[in-house]
Amino acid sequence: MRLRFTDRQIEMAHGAGGKASRRLVEGLIAPVFDNPALAPLSDAALFSVNGTRLAMTADSYVVRPLRFPGGSIGELAVNGTINDLAVSGARPRALLATFVLEAGLPVEILRAEIEAMAAAARRAGVAIVGGDTKVVEHGSADGMYVTTCGLGEADPRFSLDPATLRSGDRVLLSGAIGDHGITILFARGELELEAAELRSDTRPVTPFVEALAQTCGSGVRWMRDPTRGGVATALNEVARDSGCAIALFEEAIPVHAAVRGACELLGLDPLHIANEGQFLAIVAEADAERALAALRAVPGGDEAALVGEVRSKPARTVVGVTSYGGTRAVDMLVGDPLPRIC
Amino acid sequence: MRLRFTDRQIEMAHGAGGKASRRLVEGLIAPVFDNPALAPLSDAALFSVNGTRLAMTADSYVVRPLRFPGGSIGELAVNGTINDLAVSGARPRALLATFVLEAGLPVEILRAEIEAMAAAARRAGVAIVGGDTKVVEHGSADGMYVTTCGLGEADPRFSLDPATLRSGDRVLLSGAIGDHGITILFARGELELEAAELRSDTRPVTPFVEALAQTCGSGVRWMRDPTRGGVATALNEVARDSGCAIALFEEAIPVHAAVRGACELLGLDPLHIANEGQFLAIVAEADAERALAALRAVPGGDEAALVGEVRSKPARTVVGVTSYGGTRAVDMLVGDPLPRIC
Repeated sequence: MRLRFTDRQIEMAHGAGGKASRRLVEGLIAPVFDNPALAPLSDAALFSVNGTRLAMTADSYVVRPLRFPGGSIGELAVNGTINDLAVSGARPRALLATFVLEAGLPVEILRAEIEAMAAAARRAGVAIVGGDTKVVEHGSADGMYVTTCGLGEADPRFSLDPATLRSGDRVLLSGAIGDHGITILFARGELELEAAELRSDTRPVTPFVEALAQTCGSGVRWMRDPTRGGVATALNEVARDSGCAIALFEEAIPVHAAVRGACELLGLDPLHIANEGQFLAIVAEADAERALAALRAVPGGDEAALVGEVRSKPARTVVGVTSYGGTRAVDMLVGDPLPRIC
Repeated sequence: MRLRFTDRQIEMAHGAGGKASRRLVEGLIAPVFDNPALAPLSDAALFSVNGTRLAMTADSYVVRPLRFPGGSIGELAVNGTINDLAVSGARPRALLATFVLEAGLPVEILRAEIEAMAAAARRAGVAIVGGDTKVVEHGSADGMYVTTCGLGEADPRFSLDPATLRSGDRVLLSGAIGDHGITILFARGELELEAAELRSDTRPVTPFVEALAQTCGSGVRWMRDPTRGGVATALNEVARDSGCAIALFEEAIPVHAAVRGACELLGLDPLHIANEGQFLAIVAEADAERALAALRAVPGGDEAALVGEVRSKPARTVVGVTSYGGTRAVDMLVGDPLPRIC
């Protein structure tokens, strides 16, 4: 059964990472680019060159504003690409960066982003080996758009495959969700809201991935950094790909007070809000306790939690469950409540 | 001696591929991204992973209009990345494509570009294995910007190095220059000019590269696809990198009548106009005749010509010479006479 894409024009929701993005990619782009290495909604493509197993990923960044509490477009672009490689079970080996710059952009703004990118790459131990720069007229871009592309080498300690999910596997999360999306929303200044303690969570998730590799590499079934579309969208994708159900223990999911408050006020679900430094993994039941301890031992991992488990029914579905027995369907993101968050 | 970048804001010329682009990349970006694999103005970065020699390149495309006689942004984006790998002596193995789409873009326009990209990739025998899509508000992009990233495997038949240039080496060109840039200029409709016979030369240069590999791989010193900045800028770069002089036989350079006429009218030099399917190589003197014959035997290579030779003086300089003894300095592109041609 193939999804058909019948929309007549591009809307903001097509870039939001939820259902509309999925329809665009799976209904239009993937069928045309059709090839065995293309895995439409996974984080990186995996293929072999000369016997070496490689992963490759590219993302464009259009976040607005360019700088926000806790990070900036350049840092996001480098961390995002590193994270896509890492959760695909690959060690980052090289990055490229391209820029679309708006004429009139102050050079100091560009310099700050280039320095942020270099610092983020250095922190992750990977080099930015090339790129490209284009300039468009004033008014044809919002300051700058950045595209990063990353190459990684598959880490043989992992054998990730959603098809290996089985009932009882545990869902682990590295920390509190929603900080990035809500920070961006507040940073735009369009709402009469402020929260001094809000900061983007942008960071490389490589230390979490390495912690799992060392603890229980072969017991890890799936990893993901829940960016656009949030935790709900990422888990719906693995539910769909595996054919399993994911039971989400909603009370176990860490959400900072400012994020929870903003979501309540604005009618948003923290599970749909983008993160830029969080990490989800599904591990074998037998490995779950050690894996969680390993995540918590990572600096910045003290809020890591066991947030769900794999069940056989209802197939291809994410269900939120509460301690007093309530359940609700947790769907993918629909629409685009927070445009241009990355 | 290090170039310093002291400009205060980004101008169109910084994206034109000439002197201002060079100052931006070498004076600002490269020093911050500093690492051994970074070769600022070459077409692709070369490095090894697990003993396999790889090349990687990325370019953003912002051409306006999106479609023009002979091609479109999608075709350009795929051919351009394939060409950057090919002239770096690498066989393309995988491509990624990312899109920044403007809200309101008719889906039929996007579909046409995706189909053009798939066709171009198929023609070159390489797959588009992944990518990303972002959407910005209406007015924040001109329809769409496309970034392509390519991975290639180094072709062991080549050992390219500008340091190996020596006096007497010959400069070969695959065909007529300037068609792409002048076609774009006319396609914008801003000039009261028309030339029905003008078409972009966008194509993969891989057949030319393969012809040289089979004929005289080890005798090839340098290859380049002269895009932004044109033939003059590409040759100035190799003159500078090698420390040699390049004598350019200006009368031997094929230029179609419409391009020559437009350049005369507008005060442009065809040597500075962008090409998207031409190919320059410098080969050992002893190989030059066979190499030229091989280029001419490629379909679409009937206009290939021997257009220059390497000399020892004046060092780091390109000199145009004519049959009646005239000479002139041929400089890199300065300014941006034709913005957003790719």
